[in-house]
Amino acid sequence: MNTIKIVIAGPRGRMGSEAVKLVTNTEHFELVAAVDHKNDGMMLSDVEGFQSIPSVPVYSDIEKCLQNIEADVLIDLTTPEVGMYHAKTALEHHVRPVVGTTGFTKQDLDKLEGLCLEKELGCIIAPNFAVGAVLMMKFSQMAAKYFADVEIIEMHHDQKLDAPSGTAVKTAEMISAVREGKKQGHPNEKETITGARGGDYDGMHIHSVRLPGLIAHQQVLFGSDGQTLTIRHDSYNRGSFMSGVKVAVETVMKNNTFVYGLENILD
Amino acid sequence: MNTIKIVIAGPRGRMGSEAVKLVTNTEHFELVAAVDHKNDGMMLSDVEGFQSIPSVPVYSDIEKCLQNIEADVLIDLTTPEVGMYHAKTALEHHVRPVVGTTGFTKQDLDKLEGLCLEKELGCIIAPNFAVGAVLMMKFSQMAAKYFADVEIIEMHHDQKLDAPSGTAVKTAEMISAVREGKKQGHPNEKETITGARGGDYDGMHIHSVRLPGLIAHQQVLFGSDGQTLTIRHDSYNRGSFMSGVKVAVETVMKNNTFVYGLENILD
Amino acid sequence: MNTIKIVIAGPRGRMGSEAVKLVTNTEHFELVAAVDHKNDGMMLSDVEGFQSIPSVPVYSDIEKCLQNIEADVLIDLTTPEVGMYHAKTALEHHVRPVVGTTGFTKQDLDKLEGLCLEKELGCIIAPNFAVGAVLMMKFSQMAAKYFADVEIIEMHHDQKLDAPSGTAVKTAEMISAVREGKKQGHPNEKETITGARGGDYDGMHIHSVRLPGLIAHQQVLFGSDGQTLTIRHDSYNRGSFMSGVKVAVETVMKNNTFVYGLENILD
Amino acid sequence: MNTIKIVIAGPRGRMGSEAVKLVTNTEHFELVAAVDHKNDGMMLSDVEGFQSIPSVPVYSDIEKCLQNIEADVLIDLTTPEVGMYHAKTALEHHVRPVVGTTGFTKQDLDKLEGLCLEKELGCIIAPNFAVGAVLMMKFSQMAAKYFADVEIIEMHHDQKLDAPSGTAVKTAEMISAVREGKKQGHPNEKETITGARGGDYDGMHIHSVRLPGLIAHQQVLFGSDGQTLTIRHDSYNRGSFMSGVKVAVETVMKNNTFVYGLENILD
Repeated sequence: MNTIKIVIAGPRGRMGSEAVKLVTNTEHFELVAAVDHKNDGMMLSDVEGFQSIPSVPVYSDIEKCLQNIEADVLIDLTTPEVGMYHAKTALEHHVRPVVGTTGFTKQDLDKLEGLCLEKELGCIIAPNFAVGAVLMMKFSQMAAKYFADVEIIEMHHDQKLDAPSGTAVKTAEMISAVREGKKQGHPNEKETITGARGGDYDGMHIHSVRLPGLIAHQQVLFGSDGQTLTIRHDSYNRGSFMSGVKVAVETVMKNNTFVYGLENILD
Repeated sequence: MNTIKIVIAGPRGRMGSEAVKLVTNTEHFELVAAVDHKNDGMMLSDVEGFQSIPSVPVYSDIEKCLQNIEADVLIDLTTPEVGMYHAKTALEHHVRPVVGTTGFTKQDLDKLEGLCLEKELGCIIAPNFAVGAVLMMKFSQMAAKYFADVEIIEMHHDQKLDAPSGTAVKTAEMISAVREGKKQGHPNEKETITGARGGDYDGMHIHSVRLPGLIAHQQVLFGSDGQTLTIRHDSYNRGSFMSGVKVAVETVMKNNTFVYGLENILD
Repeated sequence: MNTIKIVIAGPRGRMGSEAVKLVTNTEHFELVAAVDHKNDGMMLSDVEGFQSIPSVPVYSDIEKCLQNIEADVLIDLTTPEVGMYHAKTALEHHVRPVVGTTGFTKQDLDKLEGLCLEKELGCIIAPNFAVGAVLMMKFSQMAAKYFADVEIIEMHHDQKLDAPSGTAVKTAEMISAVREGKKQGHPNEKETITGARGGDYDGMHIHSVRLPGLIAHQQVLFGSDGQTLTIRHDSYNRGSFMSGVKVAVETVMKNNTFVYGLENILD
Repeated sequence: MNTIKIVIAGPRGRMGSEAVKLVTNTEHFELVAAVDHKNDGMMLSDVEGFQSIPSVPVYSDIEKCLQNIEADVLIDLTTPEVGMYHAKTALEHHVRPVVGTTGFTKQDLDKLEGLCLEKELGCIIAPNFAVGAVLMMKFSQMAAKYFADVEIIEMHHDQKLDAPSGTAVKTAEMISAVREGKKQGHPNEKETITGARGGDYDGMHIHSVRLPGLIAHQQVLFGSDGQTLTIRHDSYNRGSFMSGVKVAVETVMKNNTFVYGLENILD
């Protein structure tokens, strides 16, 4: 396999620092530069936390970076506003973007897709890089064709503010897109304690558990006559995102299309 | 072990017919009569469904039964009204009652306790004979002393009308009795779908899952810094109640006290 | 939807009697005859256990049955030898077979496939009709492309003689077909109690749990950096097979190809 | 509640550094000194990693430490050899030891117990401070009285060398101590893949799962007619030990006895 030359934007962030580890520890990946709004002109190995990393230059301006450095892929783990500009600039320099930020508008996505077509280059935008979570959602959508009844239980640490989690809502949306609407449970069921039956999303029920100790877990339960099918994902730390980044980098080199969502490259 | 002579009241009910199987299949148990508001004067082996059972007489009147038959224990699986009369009559005939019906009043229980003391006989009243479910509740109460945070997830078939289940509420009551009140979850947590965080019982959250295929399941989750402890009971059929009936019959022969609740004889 | 006219072969077997219930309870299905080596010439509603079933004739000879009865689909739940003959005869009478027996030889399958092509008719042979179990295996195979590490835990009642279960071995085979061989666990791992690490299948580990109370359960666990993905199927009773029979009957009417394995019609 | 003055021995170790956090973050606990074979004479806040800690002196000699510092409790998280000397010296200075090291001999334990009696002081030695794990073992032992059949599944990351885990073996020992020996599974069961039924400990089966991503998890499954009871502990990080240290410190101040094993103070 040819070595893939990679620029990482946002190396000091939580995801970014994991990505630096991933790239420098993967045999056919090579880190060639970093883009960081701080530390312009330094070597990455002189930045705190990166002492043991091979020496590559840091640029604050992606334009300048890609003029000076030959790269195959840009891994962007910054913010939506910056990510959009980075992805656009990368494509113009014939570098394939793998972008892990959320919040792109429909207009942004259309513009990037047009640019991919024009340049005949691949580009992958993925709000969630955890392969296991993405497979859980994909399998849930597939199973929903054969199981009309489903409930989602998501479980997180008790510092989480919102319930249900974004992943639970995304899962429910994906299931909803394929199943015929169904109001689940007994038509005459009755809550003796309000809320016991969870939140209702298009007839499905979602339950949010919050406990200290928990990290990020979700199970999707399907039931039909005499059987249940359960799909569960447990995320223990951010390392879980890196397998998705790896798959995305390898895939973006092979195909010349625009892809939104990791689920569309896992088959 | 001496053989224990047993009368069963309510042999044709769902629990009663399981109890007939239990008693006739247990080496040191002997079925000596049945009490049934129908079939008075028949042999049990002539009643439909009991053809393969040893021949014992059926009485519709417990008074008459205990005048004619020497017995050690009455297993009563009828109804609260009948059960109270049966238990009282049994104690007066020096027979120890094991009663599996719910709905006794405080007054009923006090009266039976008094009679036990007077006669120096044991008596066990147990609303739930599933040893596993009773242990789950007992362990949950014990764990709650060391884990301030707990959530209950109960899961049943979708023909169940009420949510949460009686067992879930009983579990929450038992936990509530030992822990300092605590409003769980983040103080600022927010439901974007109403009900997602489940039902609130004294600061604990209870979640009721309903799916076809499921039978009767409950898990109690405790969390604290860096760890979770889960206690789960799965009930697949009514056979699950019979281990509790067996323990109760053996225990009622050994001690001469009144006991309400199987949890008080499992140590 | 047009009503589908169905003949059931093997109506008195455990699967067969469930199939009779399924067909008579499904709106667009119609039971038109039964094939049974006993009870030739009787009406099915006169056979013990079928009193409440609509009256349809019973034939012991499928040839004679299909000469007299107009049918769309044959559901065969007999034995491999009989099943082969039944499927062949059905196709010759322009009836589409849905066969739930295992043990067909490669030669049998080839012959049936040829006949399907010739007659331009669909035919589905499925060793396992439990949709949930089949999806579990299918999803496991898909996940194995992204997770190099997997262990299988199957759990059954303690009357089961063989370990691991057929489903566990089938799952391991399907995973093995797509993943690069990998010897899992630490290279220097050491069992202090022999067998603790389970059975080895192509580097994967399989664990067989046997306990009274359990029915038929399996979970497939995948792990990678910072995350695990678990796919679990619980089968509580034979009703679980009927959703697969239903899907197969509906599918065999729509396409004119030969299919072996339910996983190939669930997409 | 009175403030408890605490000396920590082994502050730079993995457990020790967590204990420093615990003590400095608990309202009624006060860190008064540290014992460390390095850094004698320094202030703890000058040692790397403890900059944000209140300033307390470091001693390399416990004797000297306890001559100069008034303390109620010594938390020792060093090694068995050192731990024994530390515990003995603490008792002689009227300081109650809470020791978290394993490997004490029977003779060591007897000597410490004698010293406790003589000095009328409490002392707690606990090989495992994870309250959840200790409760899992305790509950398993209690459940084993009512469930003759049990299997243990322990699951760890794939860098673990030994199988089964120490906790699994300890659990099996504790169960074995109360149940009548039983060879589980079907008498004629047969492994088609060697090891599938796991490791045998006194008739129980133990299964060790190893996968990247996993941390430290164990479930104990009990089965009987129609039901299963599962007790599960998940440990995500070393924070899980600290709740046990806290309970031990509070308990050792209240009672004047020698205790070996956290399970004996959790009731």
